[in-house]
This record gives sequence, C-alpha cells and structure tokens, in this order.
Amino acid sequence: MALTLYELGGLNDRRYSLFSWRARYALAHKGLAAEYRPVRVSDKAAIAFSKQEKVPILVDGDQVIHDSFRIAQHLEAHYGGESLFGGEIGQSLARFFNTWVDRTIVPRLAPLVAIDVTGIQDEGDARHLRGMMEKGFGKSLEELAANREKDVVGLRRLLDPARAQLRAQPFISGSKPAYADYILLSPLQWARIASPLPILEDGDALAAWRERMLDLYDGLGRKEPARA
Amino acid sequence: MALTLYELGGLNDRRYSLFSWRARYALAHKGLAAEYRPVRVSDKAAIAFSKQEKVPILVDGDQVIHDSFRIAQHLEAHYGGESLFGGEIGQSLARFFNTWVDRTIVPRLAPLVAIDVTGIQDEGDARHLRGMMEKGFGKSLEELAANREKDVVGLRRLLDPARAQLRAQPFISGSKPAYADYILLSPLQWARIASPLPILEDGDALAAWRERMLDLYDGLGRKEPARA
Repeated sequence: MALTLYELGGLNDRRYSLFSWRARYALAHKGLAAEYRPVRVSDKAAIAFSKQEKVPILVDGDQVIHDSFRIAQHLEAHYGGESLFGGEIGQSLARFFNTWVDRTIVPRLAPLVAIDVTGIQDEGDARHLRGMMEKGFGKSLEELAANREKDVVGLRRLLDPARAQLRAQPFISGSKPAYADYILLSPLQWARIASPLPILEDGDALAAWRERMLDLYDGLGRKEPARA
Repeated sequence: MALTLYELGGLNDRRYSLFSWRARYALAHKGLAAEYRPVRVSDKAAIAFSKQEKVPILVDGDQVIHDSFRIAQHLEAHYGGESLFGGEIGQSLARFFNTWVDRTIVPRLAPLVAIDVTGIQDEGDARHLRGMMEKGFGKSLEELAANREKDVVGLRRLLDPARAQLRAQPFISGSKPAYADYILLSPLQWARIASPLPILEDGDALAAWRERMLDLYDGLGRKEPARA
C-alpha cells in the first residue's frame, strides 16, 4: 500500500516540520517507506482533501489521517514489525508524554527559535508563523528571542523529568527507542534544523540521547542538516 | 511467601503514608495479601533492618525492598496476575509519570495540606514533618497554608495533563487501571485522609476518576476514611 506523508517544506526544500518528525520516525520504526510531500503552511488548497488545515497528514490507500499521535496509532494498528507503544498501557502513557512535551516544552522552546524558523520559510509562511506567534505571545518575534541565551536555561531545567529517564536506560522508552522518544526528539529536531541556538549543553545526558536518536535508521535525522 | 509492608502509622492507627498507597494498590492489583505494619517517622530503629530511613518498605521472604517504584518493579518481576506496567515501554513511561507527579504535583500539594497531616500524627512525627517542610519551603506550615483555597486553583491547573488522559479513556493507563493510576492516586489519597481541603472540584473528570479508584478492590482506598 502506498503511503504519503504531507509535511511542511521550507526554502531549499528544508523539511523542518515540527510534528512531522514524529511521523517520519514512526514510519522508520515500522520499516515503512513513504513518499514525503512538502506543502506550504499558507497553501490550504494543497491539503483541503484532508478536511482540516494542519500537517502532518498521512495518506494510506483511501485512509486520510491527520495529527501525529493519530498517525502513530494508525501505523501501530495496521502494520507489524517493532511496536511503537508496547501495548495499551504504553500507548496511554505515551499520550501523557505527548501532552507533557506539547504543553510544557514546545511553548517554551517555540518563542526562542521561531524567528530563525522564519528564515528557512518562504515569505508567505514566514508571515503566517510570525502572525501566529506574535498573536499567541503578545510580543514580536524579536522581543521573544531577545534574551534567549538566558531563557534557554529555564527550558533546560523544564526538561529534567525527561533527563531523569536516562539515568538508568539509554532511551526514554527503555533499552530501545520507541514512540515517546520520537515525541521529544521532534521539537529538538525542529530547533536543530532552524536555529543555531544550542538548546542542550554539551555533557547533558539529553544531548547524548539526541545524538543516538539522530543516528537511528541510517542517520534519518541527520540527513536534514543542522542550521549553521 | 509472606509479604510485609512497612508504612507510616498515625494517631488512631491512621494509614496516611503518601507513597505507601502506591504499594498498597500495587499489591491489590496483583491479588496479593500482605501484613501492613505501621511505623512512626521518628522511629528509625524500627526500620534499621532496611539500611535506610524511609517507608514504604516491602519484605518478601529474605528480600527487603524500599522505594515505592522499586516495590512495584519487584512485584511485577516476581508475581503473575495482572501486569502493573504492560511491558518495558509501559514501565519506562510509568517511571516518567512517577517523576512528573513527584516533582510537579507533590511539591505543590504538600505545602497546602501538611499542617493537617500533623493533626493525625503523634507529637514526634508532627514535629519531624513540620521541621522538614519548614526547612524545605522556608515558611511556617501556617504560612504555607494561609492562602490555600486560592493556591489550590494553581494545583488543579497543573493536573491538566493528567486530566487530558481521561478525555478518551476511564483511567490514566487506558481502559483499566494500572500502576500509573496508583502513582497519581497516592498523593490525592494522602490529602483525602489528612485534610478537609477539597483538592479537586465536583465535576472535574479527575474527581470522578478518583472515585473509581477508591472503589477498586472492594473499596480499598475508602476503608481509610476521609478527613471530615
């Protein structure tokens, strides 16, 4: 069955889409090939078929699935191979982890690097992101990033519960990576592709974990270069 | 094999021990009977055999296990019946949930109800708890609780990621309760036993979940009455 993933594409075809990296790693975890089709944020017509306005969207035959967590659930339900969740309890707690990352980490990370993200987007998408962020935070992108070398320290501290996972095991999910690892990698990969700001310090257990994650699946994450 | 759980005992033999409730529910989940032996916080001699100073402690034959998470892991590894974690990924993510509850929820809950906890402890244990809390927070127990009807609103908001779990499923762990549910119930049960402060509002999905949790295992949690 042909799989197609719709995701954001930026200047020079950069694939920086924050939530799409969860779907990309989920597909690789299952050993599934897919066609990756870039769309612009502002091009609602390109994804009108999905009857909603956000990527990533997975098209699997005649099924159209949006929302990264639902895409992972779809792959888990319909494809064999390595499990993304390890059963019902693992799936439920991965959902909790997803909520924690999206409510605790993403809103603290996004204001620090959004200004850099606009630098790898075409004009229309950059204007869209700027408008959304400035409305949400009530500050300009420049103001949001003004003290980011200091603000990133607070973000690093917020990551402590994830860091604690790595004391006794190499991955968030245990001895091997699974969907919860992809959940957290995703915003860090978004920042890595778009921004030169060092989100994690050298020597941080999470930085070493991120390197292991980027190595997976023949360096899947590294194929998209880091912003210089 | 005889199982013995050492836990805090208060005035009139109240069993209010915060972390012990995790072990109590884990034992019930596995269908295991145990002897529950009360100790006072200040009576280090009673638990000197464990070579550390905290309860709960599980004694299983010649094995002595302390720390509630390690007790759950021990029960999972050595006893059949219903799984507490549902495999390695579930166990890893339950550990994350444990970290989140202990670092995010417990430190915001404890200052609000500690003063009431001292009311169900003997004098020595009350002095111990007061000393520990006042040193940790730099305020008297009275000051910590002074605005608690207002402060509890912030705590309720912090519980949002747990609340979100219940939108599509009856328990934190999915369709059935498992160890992550016991992790979160435990501080709420501690507060319920010790304090008249309403931690959750009527109509809150978490309040309905707590009632379901208290119903489990023939009303295990309700056998310890709520503070009037």
